[in-house]
Amino acid sequence: MTPLHKLSTKFSSPPTPSLNSNARCQWFAAAALVATTLAITSAAAEPLKISDFTLKNGLELVVIPDHRAPVVTHMIWYKVGSADETPGISGLAHFLEHLMFKGTAKNPTGHFSRVVATIGGQENAFTSNDYTAFYQRVPSEQLKTVMEFEADRMSGLQLTDAVVLPERNVILEEWNQRVGNNPRARLGEQIDAALFLNHPYGRPVIGWRQEMEQLNRDEALDFYRRFYGPNGAVVVIAGDVEPEQALKFAEETYGTAKRNDLIKPRHRPQEPPPVAVRSLTLADARVEQPFLQRTYLVPSFGTAQKGESEALEVLAHVLGSGSSSRLYRTLAVDKPVAVMAAAGYDSSALDMSKFTVYGSPRPGVALPQFEAEIDAVIADVIAKGVSADELERAKSRLIADATYAQDNQATMARWYGAALMTGASVQDVQRWPDRIRAVTAEQVQDAARKWLDKRRSVTGYLIKDTSPQVEKRS
Amino acid sequence: MTPLHKLSTKFSSPPTPSLNSNARCQWFAAAALVATTLAITSAAAEPLKISDFTLKNGLELVVIPDHRAPVVTHMIWYKVGSADETPGISGLAHFLEHLMFKGTAKNPTGHFSRVVATIGGQENAFTSNDYTAFYQRVPSEQLKTVMEFEADRMSGLQLTDAVVLPERNVILEEWNQRVGNNPRARLGEQIDAALFLNHPYGRPVIGWRQEMEQLNRDEALDFYRRFYGPNGAVVVIAGDVEPEQALKFAEETYGTAKRNDLIKPRHRPQEPPPVAVRSLTLADARVEQPFLQRTYLVPSFGTAQKGESEALEVLAHVLGSGSSSRLYRTLAVDKPVAVMAAAGYDSSALDMSKFTVYGSPRPGVALPQFEAEIDAVIADVIAKGVSADELERAKSRLIADATYAQDNQATMARWYGAALMTGASVQDVQRWPDRIRAVTAEQVQDAARKWLDKRRSVTGYLIKDTSPQVEKRS
Repeated sequence: MTPLHKLSTKFSSPPTPSLNSNARCQWFAAAALVATTLAITSAAAEPLKISDFTLKNGLELVVIPDHRAPVVTHMIWYKVGSADETPGISGLAHFLEHLMFKGTAKNPTGHFSRVVATIGGQENAFTSNDYTAFYQRVPSEQLKTVMEFEADRMSGLQLTDAVVLPERNVILEEWNQRVGNNPRARLGEQIDAALFLNHPYGRPVIGWRQEMEQLNRDEALDFYRRFYGPNGAVVVIAGDVEPEQALKFAEETYGTAKRNDLIKPRHRPQEPPPVAVRSLTLADARVEQPFLQRTYLVPSFGTAQKGESEALEVLAHVLGSGSSSRLYRTLAVDKPVAVMAAAGYDSSALDMSKFTVYGSPRPGVALPQFEAEIDAVIADVIAKGVSADELERAKSRLIADATYAQDNQATMARWYGAALMTGASVQDVQRWPDRIRAVTAEQVQDAARKWLDKRRSVTGYLIKDTSPQVEKRS
Repeated sequence: MTPLHKLSTKFSSPPTPSLNSNARCQWFAAAALVATTLAITSAAAEPLKISDFTLKNGLELVVIPDHRAPVVTHMIWYKVGSADETPGISGLAHFLEHLMFKGTAKNPTGHFSRVVATIGGQENAFTSNDYTAFYQRVPSEQLKTVMEFEADRMSGLQLTDAVVLPERNVILEEWNQRVGNNPRARLGEQIDAALFLNHPYGRPVIGWRQEMEQLNRDEALDFYRRFYGPNGAVVVIAGDVEPEQALKFAEETYGTAKRNDLIKPRHRPQEPPPVAVRSLTLADARVEQPFLQRTYLVPSFGTAQKGESEALEVLAHVLGSGSSSRLYRTLAVDKPVAVMAAAGYDSSALDMSKFTVYGSPRPGVALPQFEAEIDAVIADVIAKGVSADELERAKSRLIADATYAQDNQATMARWYGAALMTGASVQDVQRWPDRIRAVTAEQVQDAARKWLDKRRSVTGYLIKDTSPQVEKRS
């Protein structure tokens, strides 16, 4: 059991209850914060100087300086996630993340984790549709040590059935806890499956349970050999280290790894143009409060036309971020028909992404009425756009919120890593605040009109199952 | 242009309007007819003696005697359909079906078809999720000639961009006609995509248009080399030929082909247990009559417990076959709220299958009311079962209808071919009438209770799009 790395696995229950099963949104939030920070810092003080190197074997190294304390956060990101799995073998990317803790010839099971713990460090790992990442936060002088460990398990992983099979029980138990016993996660799983008709984002990151039950050693090693290697990896180091020093360590550790020629550019099956308005209802005896989630298929930063993704970020903020947002104000305060109502957009995905609106009606308000109220708020934004005041507040707030992010080394490392895994560059991240500042009210209205089209969406209803003899199917 | 073979492609518009895009239902009907015929014949006259051989290279040969006229129907069935395609390359099985008419070194493009036409024969081809088949109906003395042609193109296909690219335009035009310009087919496509969360049956047989546009020669040849070969084929010959003679011809033609070691048993990703009630709405300006289709995920003959598939066949008949069925009588005659209402079940699939209920409300009856009426009819069958009279009428009718099928050589060949492609045997087909006779009222009610659970279903609504400025997305 390596309890640490499974706790922050990417598809964990999200902070916002609806954006589950694929928690890329979490990254996005972090991303926005950090990117903005950079610009703010650059106005107020010395610009944050981020170094970006590529070793001969293809490994990319990003170094983010932070000298406030003698600590570094070291992350290695692999360009492989659940969307890269072979159909029928779902959950393998995440399973392999777990198995990466099972040791090599040089460092047997548990040794790496023990060393990190001994030096007072922290470690973790997470998997998303688009990437798998491992990280350690350690005293600066231990940086090279963890790089040696990571470089070793990049190609030296050894697996036996004796370690693989018990770990399979661990991920199955994880499924029970996170999906089987979590109706909102279940709802999110079903919405994703209905939203994506062809793209593998419709597949849960943790996997379909019946396929997880069959995962095995050979498949895991096969996947490992196909996707892991220096040319499929980005190392992000944030903290108290000089770039040249980090580069020297990288060359001495990762630099000796051989390029993996099996690693290819990722081309996933794409979506057909969406044409049908979809909905689904999940009834569960454990639901205490009905819940509605509508998810629209929208572009990510990487697939959007210039400015569209930024407009969607502002739109999500105006529509559904916080107590002064349109949805909350109208539905939870003015009317009030909602206990809660919000919206979110995830700009970070290698392929297309999602815009989500969600909420819970007050007791006595039926879901269809609640949905009609949500529709009216959306229709109003489409018809009349957002006010100059709303626009400015949203942009300022997005940028102001970001100021606080520079405080967190790991957040910075995560944002750059996630961006580089999904087709963006270090420069893209650094220009984020300027891109947000450039968004116009017209662009926000256009984005609402173009993308918040119900034919692009799935609406999920989570209701209490009150039937006395429900056949349990999960 | 080889206009013949594309006309009866398997996903053609079905006789029952709702069972589109995958017309396996058509086969099922044919199957039932023939299988029953055999049993009836066996009571009244000499049993129909069907021969089943396997050549050394793995090719299976089924010979069905029919000496009424000096004519034979020769069909070759390959164990490959759209569900065997690689994700992202959808439509390839069907595209290859078209390309199979592009000639070999020995028989250049068009030669085979010209010979068939010259001898007064007919030819055709079709593709489904589970198989691809080619057939000719020719004078008996020409049997060996067509076998030589088919054996030649089993491994000798030659393709150049000069023939591949124009044929791609042909299948794209086919998509326009059959899907793009056919709202009911579109509805069926969307329902399948929402019904199957993980299994490739969710992918349209004809393909997703954006992927069809990219299909090319290399992919087609690759697919051909991977799936075509004697050990992936069943030849069914119905007509005026002695089994030993047919076997001799087969050995002289197909018998010289080398086994293809790339052909493996087919294991597709399976469905997770369905948990969410799903629905979708497709609005189209061309719709004159609203239409509702509900499709449930149910077992096929091959995946069902003993007797379950037969009970579903009887259930579909009682519920929705003809003017004395529950749905038609209740909704179109007694109430009347329907213009039409019917049900169908397709027992023939390598993996799970579908049970469909569909209909159109009378003008003035809203779809939700119409759906509630359909639900009431289903709920009544679940609660009270079917009467002894209904049961007997359904079974007799299924078996009696079958009597007429023996008249059609091609129908017989198709049923055996389709059965052998989806995991059934010649014996399974021959025992079909006995299996239907054994169905009890209790089994029918159990099947309704167990399988007509809304959580297993997607309900599709097809409505007229009356918005003045609809953005066209297909």
